[in-house]
Amino acid sequence: MRFAAGAQDISVSASPYKQLEQEFKRLHALRGALSLLRWDAAVMMPRGSADIRGEQLAALETEHHALLTAPRISRLLDRAQANEQGMEDWQIANLREMRRERDHAIATPVSLISRLTKAVSRAEVCWLDARAQGRFDQFAPHLEEVVHLVRDKAALLGQALNLAPYDALVDEFSPGITTVDIDTMFKALSRRLPALIREAIAEQEGRPPQPLAGKFPLAKQRALIVEIMKQIGFPFDRGRLDESEHPFTEGVPGDIRVTTRLDATDPFTGLLGALHETGHAMYDLGLPQDWRDQPVGRDRGMALEESQSLLMEMIVCRSRPFARYVLPLLEKHFAVSGPEWDVENLYAHLTRVRRGSIRVDADELTYPLHILLRYELEKQLLFGELAVRDLPEAWNAGMQQRLGIRPANDTEGCLQDVHWSVGSFGYFPSYALGAVIAAQLYESLRSDVPALDEQLARGEFSGLLGWLRTNVYGLGAKVPVQDLLRGATGKTLSAAAYIRYAEAKYLGPAASEAA
Amino acid sequence: MRFAAGAQDISVSASPYKQLEQEFKRLHALRGALSLLRWDAAVMMPRGSADIRGEQLAALETEHHALLTAPRISRLLDRAQANEQGMEDWQIANLREMRRERDHAIATPVSLISRLTKAVSRAEVCWLDARAQGRFDQFAPHLEEVVHLVRDKAALLGQALNLAPYDALVDEFSPGITTVDIDTMFKALSRRLPALIREAIAEQEGRPPQPLAGKFPLAKQRALIVEIMKQIGFPFDRGRLDESEHPFTEGVPGDIRVTTRLDATDPFTGLLGALHETGHAMYDLGLPQDWRDQPVGRDRGMALEESQSLLMEMIVCRSRPFARYVLPLLEKHFAVSGPEWDVENLYAHLTRVRRGSIRVDADELTYPLHILLRYELEKQLLFGELAVRDLPEAWNAGMQQRLGIRPANDTEGCLQDVHWSVGSFGYFPSYALGAVIAAQLYESLRSDVPALDEQLARGEFSGLLGWLRTNVYGLGAKVPVQDLLRGATGKTLSAAAYIRYAEAKYLGPAASEAA
Repeated sequence: MRFAAGAQDISVSASPYKQLEQEFKRLHALRGALSLLRWDAAVMMPRGSADIRGEQLAALETEHHALLTAPRISRLLDRAQANEQGMEDWQIANLREMRRERDHAIATPVSLISRLTKAVSRAEVCWLDARAQGRFDQFAPHLEEVVHLVRDKAALLGQALNLAPYDALVDEFSPGITTVDIDTMFKALSRRLPALIREAIAEQEGRPPQPLAGKFPLAKQRALIVEIMKQIGFPFDRGRLDESEHPFTEGVPGDIRVTTRLDATDPFTGLLGALHETGHAMYDLGLPQDWRDQPVGRDRGMALEESQSLLMEMIVCRSRPFARYVLPLLEKHFAVSGPEWDVENLYAHLTRVRRGSIRVDADELTYPLHILLRYELEKQLLFGELAVRDLPEAWNAGMQQRLGIRPANDTEGCLQDVHWSVGSFGYFPSYALGAVIAAQLYESLRSDVPALDEQLARGEFSGLLGWLRTNVYGLGAKVPVQDLLRGATGKTLSAAAYIRYAEAKYLGPAASEAA
Repeated sequence: MRFAAGAQDISVSASPYKQLEQEFKRLHALRGALSLLRWDAAVMMPRGSADIRGEQLAALETEHHALLTAPRISRLLDRAQANEQGMEDWQIANLREMRRERDHAIATPVSLISRLTKAVSRAEVCWLDARAQGRFDQFAPHLEEVVHLVRDKAALLGQALNLAPYDALVDEFSPGITTVDIDTMFKALSRRLPALIREAIAEQEGRPPQPLAGKFPLAKQRALIVEIMKQIGFPFDRGRLDESEHPFTEGVPGDIRVTTRLDATDPFTGLLGALHETGHAMYDLGLPQDWRDQPVGRDRGMALEESQSLLMEMIVCRSRPFARYVLPLLEKHFAVSGPEWDVENLYAHLTRVRRGSIRVDADELTYPLHILLRYELEKQLLFGELAVRDLPEAWNAGMQQRLGIRPANDTEGCLQDVHWSVGSFGYFPSYALGAVIAAQLYESLRSDVPALDEQLARGEFSGLLGWLRTNVYGLGAKVPVQDLLRGATGKTLSAAAYIRYAEAKYLGPAASEAA
């Protein structure tokens, strides 16, 4: 059955600012629809329907772009900006975010975006094949085309936003973060991490964890994950948990869709994937409700998003308190028992440090080095300092230098990530920024909530979430990320807390508590 | 992760007709997105997310309406129409369908549609409560408001389309069908059906079917349904089967989503629901591939849609040949056996005629009388000949007169259907038209494919689908429905074939084959 639906009309007698709110409410609804289409494509869609979905996504993106770049929006922005006196802080911040969005959308001509979209859709298909067969040579011409177009886009974006080209790309994903911030962070990490990794591995080699054997049927894994997510506070009447090839979070606050990937031989893959995504979801769900359909009510970019998933997964859940909480649940759901099922052995599994080729399998100490390599290479590719054909060798040399290992082939090397094939340059740094921001927030959180560990060991997440609601979630996009950090931690972005956290966790007295 | 996507640009150097094709391709993609949002709302969406989904649907409807009613479309339509010489038949038909769509969209002012949308969304919520509690008095003011607004809409639509107001409403769902066609059909049905029902019930009372007992676990029901749908040819790589409160079909050819409702005590509810929807799906999947994103490539309205679902469910699957095919599958999937599991007893279950209050539970003989009642009442409501407050009594009197039964309460009476609460007037006739068209097509199909029964008994659907592809599916919306019928059956719409079919099935020698 198809039933008539209708149209909303926007009152033109409202103030320019109020008219903008109405326009961005429509844009928000379109973005929500786009998000659902992407979720469905990864979780529900029949395999043969990808082309059709691609057309639907493109049509909605086009409408979103057309609405956002309409001359009417620019006129309203100018008129609203001339009337900022008397507006509330939130509204002024909202106006700033509206302008930012419009500036990004309008900076690149539709013809360039269209060429990039087509190049990217060819490149992604080719990348899938090339990765499966370890044939970088087949992928190279496509990557070359994408790099050229992204270079043009970066130049135009940079001009329009008054930023260096690479900074303009970063600004799309993590507004308020610059190359200077990223370089400073990576410099500090490069200075300490390689030795820290060596020491942690040496420390762990003395007491290798005992294997955690058992039977882990998928239905029981699902039940365990749902129980823990409910305990954290994930609202299953306004969200879902499903399975997909790679874990992700989509949707909008009020309809959040989390996925994970289950492995019948290992319950931790699915659980930790779900907890990572629950970190994203709790952030999104905690965004200011009153502004939920406005730009100022959104998350504060990918670096902060990733800080929330890593804080939840890496810091909160790969911890002794969490191991204490989760051990009885593992025993209950999987009927496991035996001396190896104890807190210290579980904790040893959750915090194992190992050098490996694959980013998504990396532990929290080696992970930033994977990102550093990608950050350096993608800048070299964009600035013409590295030819696409020389990427595999540069990758392998970088891995050797940074992590002391050489990938067995390009599938485990420069072909492992999807990002470049889909034109996402400037995105990788947000992963490392997220790790650093997570540790910085956590240091203040611990000092503000002294009972945190005891709470977590009891499965109580209210202290954690209360602090995050006040200091992160509830701010939405009201202030720039550096201001948010200063408010929450007293400092702007710095890798110092991350290094303190890593040293204490992997080398401090607690690291060898069981020894 | 969020990746950049892009915009399509429409070349302005193409001919007006080609430009229109591009515009309608975008509209098609938007409609596909809307369809997915509706599917998700009924099948996957968390319960608490309905408000958000409502906003997303409204935003997409608004964009669809804005694109379709843009002055540019009208200009292009005029210019294209002036250049029809040299265009192919298909293209001329496409232009006609484009204009029809635009005419419908532009006839009603946005302000009226907006008021109707709001009234309808209040009315539907209230209807759910009123139905649950049997409180028509609570629903009446909302229905009154909806009736008023639909009356205004019908008047404006009628003026714009040069049709009588009620015909204009029918035209939205079943273009090419008029009140005269509907009245003629119902007159013929009213003349024969009441006696036919009496005779069929008397005939069946002499040999009541034996109960079909067994255990029918839902997972096995699903497996049975999937096996049969695959056998019919439903492509699970370009479609899905799920469960929902009411069976429906959504999606677009290439990504068709069918649902059914399973009942653990009765395997036929779920199976026949799925087969009904498979009839819709096979029609949609068989629409002309070359025109899949154009108006001329769509289905030929709800009357023809319903003819395809009823042909599949009522005629093809509630038959002896299908009972022969499906009996071994029932035995295999449910491990049932015994003398009651034989073709004649199964067939007796599939064709049982009973007078009841509920439309969706009605058999194929009593069903048109349920529709006739609604058709008469909705016209009286719209023309002011029946006050909303008098509806329950008019309903009950009509049921008494047409079907000889009086509903126990309004929940089983005038509150049972959602249609009026959501403003769908002019929709009900398509159900009865579908039954009549199905029988008319089937009569020609049987004569063109003499081996049909033997094929169906072997689970071979190629003869059936081949004929439908040639005579129905493959035409899309190229010709008006009456021309389609003339081409397929040599006659325009007539209830004669339906009556012949019903007499043969329920009273003819085959009806008592087992006696």
